[in-house]
Amino acid sequence: MFDAKKTKDAVVRWIRDFFEENGKGCNAIVGISGGKDSSIVAALCVEALGRERVIGVLMPCGQQHDIDMAYLLVHHLGIRHYEINVEDAVNGVMQHLPFEISSQTRTNIPPRIRMTTLYAVAQSHNGRVANTCNLSEDWVGYSTRYGDAAGDFSPCSHLTVTEMKEIGRVLGLPDVLVDKTPIDGLCGKTDEENLGFTYAELDRYIRTGEMEEGPKKERIDRLHVLNQFKLKLMPSFDPGI
Amino acid sequence: MFDAKKTKDAVVRWIRDFFEENGKGCNAIVGISGGKDSSIVAALCVEALGRERVIGVLMPCGQQHDIDMAYLLVHHLGIRHYEINVEDAVNGVMQHLPFEISSQTRTNIPPRIRMTTLYAVAQSHNGRVANTCNLSEDWVGYSTRYGDAAGDFSPCSHLTVTEMKEIGRVLGLPDVLVDKTPIDGLCGKTDEENLGFTYAELDRYIRTGEMEEGPKKERIDRLHVLNQFKLKLMPSFDPGI
Repeated sequence: MFDAKKTKDAVVRWIRDFFEENGKGCNAIVGISGGKDSSIVAALCVEALGRERVIGVLMPCGQQHDIDMAYLLVHHLGIRHYEINVEDAVNGVMQHLPFEISSQTRTNIPPRIRMTTLYAVAQSHNGRVANTCNLSEDWVGYSTRYGDAAGDFSPCSHLTVTEMKEIGRVLGLPDVLVDKTPIDGLCGKTDEENLGFTYAELDRYIRTGEMEEGPKKERIDRLHVLNQFKLKLMPSFDPGI
Repeated sequence: MFDAKKTKDAVVRWIRDFFEENGKGCNAIVGISGGKDSSIVAALCVEALGRERVIGVLMPCGQQHDIDMAYLLVHHLGIRHYEINVEDAVNGVMQHLPFEISSQTRTNIPPRIRMTTLYAVAQSHNGRVANTCNLSEDWVGYSTRYGDAAGDFSPCSHLTVTEMKEIGRVLGLPDVLVDKTPIDGLCGKTDEENLGFTYAELDRYIRTGEMEEGPKKERIDRLHVLNQFKLKLMPSFDPGI
């Protein structure tokens, strides 16, 4: 059985140790989307480091319809925060591309600009950037390499969505944040619509290996294999010298 | 003794194998600065895949005083190329930062925007992004994490600057490209001025372990330890489930 309280305490200790070893006195920089993952990571950092050492960065691209959720989180935690609109930078890349832009290109530019922005904040605030990916997303490659998949430390990338929610409750986060339906914020579809299976199904499969044979299982297995490269270092030629 | 011809042939085979396994028929996308490393990587990709499957991306930030060198390379190789100015995107990030911007921030935004741009090209051209770092730079952390340190495959990150130059000559690249003094293109200083030691000194130390005790050796050792994290995956919490 998953023990949310015990796991939460262990993550908090791990974050504290990471900063002790890799940035004594540094600040945690967390991109705040208003969803569950960034809320939980920010709350974990606050418990580990104290709220004075956590900076939330809200990064709407133009208008963000649910930015109130991001504000709810930073006010709930009482952390310093910046709202930095990434639209000009996204357009700054897009408008100079002298070819027909694929939808994949369009989807992945904002997460990379957000990464660039988070590091700009970190490098001006003695910071370390938190990665906010969870295991369920990583399992099927639901992230942008060198975008939201980037960061300096990753507290939750071995925890499923189901486990994350339990930790969110242990942390006392508002239900409206913990239970928020994840939407990718780009195409407006929910994650589960994009993926073609539910997180409950995926999480059970990850933790027990059990899933009915059929198209959903095939899809998960295919995505898992196809996206493995995102979790590894890029291959490099070794001359053996 | 380093055998440049043999090593060049081995890298070419490795690139061919990488594409065979990770992107059959895909194109290599190479950011072309006009310096030695990107010239050599582009030439290696041309030899491995044929010039039709290599796309050079020139990414000046405003005016680039030595852009003629980048054009010399793409014309020499006869590869498709784009010139995409990154200045608007860089300013698009910079102008929205609501705090005093450190010089470290200023230095690292352009490489991250260039990474974003290279992936935009790749994702609209069935591409794989080449990393153009060499061992000497990586040894002392002379790169931007998630910026020029990014990529899908890295042909030269285990070859020193000294070895790279020999390979450049074997590839028949114009001397003016192979012998070009590396300048970071940001602060206008040469790499060697920034680093405080020469590549010849560093490369000898890397390959033989020999260097006179003193401030240069101390500086290299310090940079090497400090920057190790850039060559690894970020640490992540493992709940051991």
